[in-house]
Amino acid sequence: MIKEKIKQAVEILKGKDIDMWLTFVRESSLIPDPMIDITVGTHSTWQTAYIITKYGDTIAIAGSLDVANIKAYGYYKDVIGYVESIKEPLLRILDKIKPNKIAINFSTDTVIADGLTHGMYLSLMRYLEGTGYEDKIISSERIISALRGRKSKTEIKYIKEAIVETLRIFDKVSKFIKPGKTEQEVANYILNLVRKTKLETAWDEKQCPAVFSGPESAGAHAEPTKRKIQGGHILNIDFGVRKNGYCSDLQRTWYIRRKGEKTVPKEVHKGFNVIIEAIARAAEALKAGVQGYEIDAIARDYITSQGYKEYPHALGHQIGRSAHDGGGLLCPKWDRYGNLPYEKVETGQVYTLEPRLTVEGYGIATVEEIVLVTDSGCKFLSKPQKQIWVI
Amino acid sequence: MIKEKIKQAVEILKGKDIDMWLTFVRESSLIPDPMIDITVGTHSTWQTAYIITKYGDTIAIAGSLDVANIKAYGYYKDVIGYVESIKEPLLRILDKIKPNKIAINFSTDTVIADGLTHGMYLSLMRYLEGTGYEDKIISSERIISALRGRKSKTEIKYIKEAIVETLRIFDKVSKFIKPGKTEQEVANYILNLVRKTKLETAWDEKQCPAVFSGPESAGAHAEPTKRKIQGGHILNIDFGVRKNGYCSDLQRTWYIRRKGEKTVPKEVHKGFNVIIEAIARAAEALKAGVQGYEIDAIARDYITSQGYKEYPHALGHQIGRSAHDGGGLLCPKWDRYGNLPYEKVETGQVYTLEPRLTVEGYGIATVEEIVLVTDSGCKFLSKPQKQIWVI
Repeated sequence: MIKEKIKQAVEILKGKDIDMWLTFVRESSLIPDPMIDITVGTHSTWQTAYIITKYGDTIAIAGSLDVANIKAYGYYKDVIGYVESIKEPLLRILDKIKPNKIAINFSTDTVIADGLTHGMYLSLMRYLEGTGYEDKIISSERIISALRGRKSKTEIKYIKEAIVETLRIFDKVSKFIKPGKTEQEVANYILNLVRKTKLETAWDEKQCPAVFSGPESAGAHAEPTKRKIQGGHILNIDFGVRKNGYCSDLQRTWYIRRKGEKTVPKEVHKGFNVIIEAIARAAEALKAGVQGYEIDAIARDYITSQGYKEYPHALGHQIGRSAHDGGGLLCPKWDRYGNLPYEKVETGQVYTLEPRLTVEGYGIATVEEIVLVTDSGCKFLSKPQKQIWVI
Repeated sequence: MIKEKIKQAVEILKGKDIDMWLTFVRESSLIPDPMIDITVGTHSTWQTAYIITKYGDTIAIAGSLDVANIKAYGYYKDVIGYVESIKEPLLRILDKIKPNKIAINFSTDTVIADGLTHGMYLSLMRYLEGTGYEDKIISSERIISALRGRKSKTEIKYIKEAIVETLRIFDKVSKFIKPGKTEQEVANYILNLVRKTKLETAWDEKQCPAVFSGPESAGAHAEPTKRKIQGGHILNIDFGVRKNGYCSDLQRTWYIRRKGEKTVPKEVHKGFNVIIEAIARAAEALKAGVQGYEIDAIARDYITSQGYKEYPHALGHQIGRSAHDGGGLLCPKWDRYGNLPYEKVETGQVYTLEPRLTVEGYGIATVEEIVLVTDSGCKFLSKPQKQIWVI
């Protein structure tokens, strides 16, 4: 996988005419640049420069004690060790390659491309001072967006496998959810299933799964509480697993009937169906070449046109090795998102679609599906939820 | 623990007369600022500002979906949510506090204080542009060094517990090591013991434990290989566990006798004893107020005076929530270490002592102990290895 990705990186560098991509890290297990997983595959302790060029060079400059390990992995053809300072071997390599552009991992907008710490940036600039190379520095965000976004066949297969596992767990959970159980009990039940199947959760276990029951719950990004599930609650779960290093991220919504209640209340029914329709409309329009904000607006405008408040987040993010992957986002033109709403959707990207709305007095209806962008449109990788699941 | 540490942070801010300490993160589970574990305790998705002031204020400004979770943790008295951009609420808080100094987490020298990414630094500077606050920015490295370095009683108790577990595992390993077994088999045996006791390894499992057998091994910072243990090998293991969130980091050395060999070869005996003596001399001199390089030099000079090459790393690092913790280091004045060799040792800091040397033809002798700095000297927290362990 790392070999595949390094090869793909060389192609992307050629395509964008960028001579050199430099991933510059230290103590990477403590402060991990997200690129480590994709193009390096192991950690190092001292300042380490991983260099990939458009000519196909792969060079690592590392503290002497890290050299054997990087060599053992074999992804970098040239591994150069140093004891006192990385400066001299780094400048020697730069003088050999004479790059016109040096891409490094910082980005105000793309989290996944922002692995370089500010202290490391300052060190790098100090090494380059007066060499002329300090003026060649650019952000690697477009390289990383392309590299993480365009999924290979193997990557898509892995994501599908993670989705299948997640849906299987959701099926079991449907039988477990009952009035009187707490959000935490539901979460622990899911975590036990994850452990039994030797999977990992797709993000921090404390919030994966996230379980929200009823009108008083936080609704998102919070840990399960001791709140009890009751009749009249909408319950939703946000959950994903990591399998073979690739993630799923899905949400499903249940309704808990009150004693004697035969059907789902009209308001709940309507809210849920508006979510399903918003996802269908967004998916219908999603294809290579459109800008992220256009797709977000379709779902957002439909939801507000039905009398609900707009959701306070993006419609969808990319998914891959991490649950929030890649650059381009299906999001509104909010300051917070920088240039991401304007990025063009590309074939091979995998997005979530996850609008939400509040049904007053009941809870939050939210469904999250996963789709793959193709040349002509998009394809659901998850079997979509079409009906609210009733307990 | 986090409450204790926030309280300690306020005292440190008062002591150093720094008005405000700002930890500025986003997607902190993907790119974790090491301070998250110490002063926050949970993750957030959008840009989040965690502010602690010398007046005792604790303020979090977070994306609206992260607010409920941060409130649930209860460490920050004021939790302010935003939807479109953090800029406005952040500037409002700054105008209220009017700080003269704003410490943020970047450092060229102290890894643990370098959690702010360069992209996030640029965003922050963009928000502050023209407000005057951009000139108040300083590095938080001295706050963080003090906060992580000065261990509380509870912290020392936790580190001791992690040490006890590690030494117990080393005892078991001594019975498992045999000629013909591979480094990987020894490592897997240890990992199984870690899992059985529901502990975690102190750093990345791939290199924890690190097992090195014989003269051809990498000797440090590498993963265990399929190399077979043989008579005539020196074998060393670098290993630690995390218990209650606190780490140990210890090394032990064994000698594998050849068939019929009754005693340890003279060269091996001498090499091992030089290491033990180097540790003893360094510990003898270690006390509050000395500079890190002075202690490193004692061990380093002793080893070279005995005819060995100097070790290509520091004599010791601090230990705590992570295996490499705190600021000050017992290290030589090499460019790579920036200002760390000159930092003064403080009471309450916990250091490793880990010199190494190569015994030609046999392997690498290295022992790592853990000591606590007291007002008058230092105290071993680990029961020191005094004899090479013979198989």
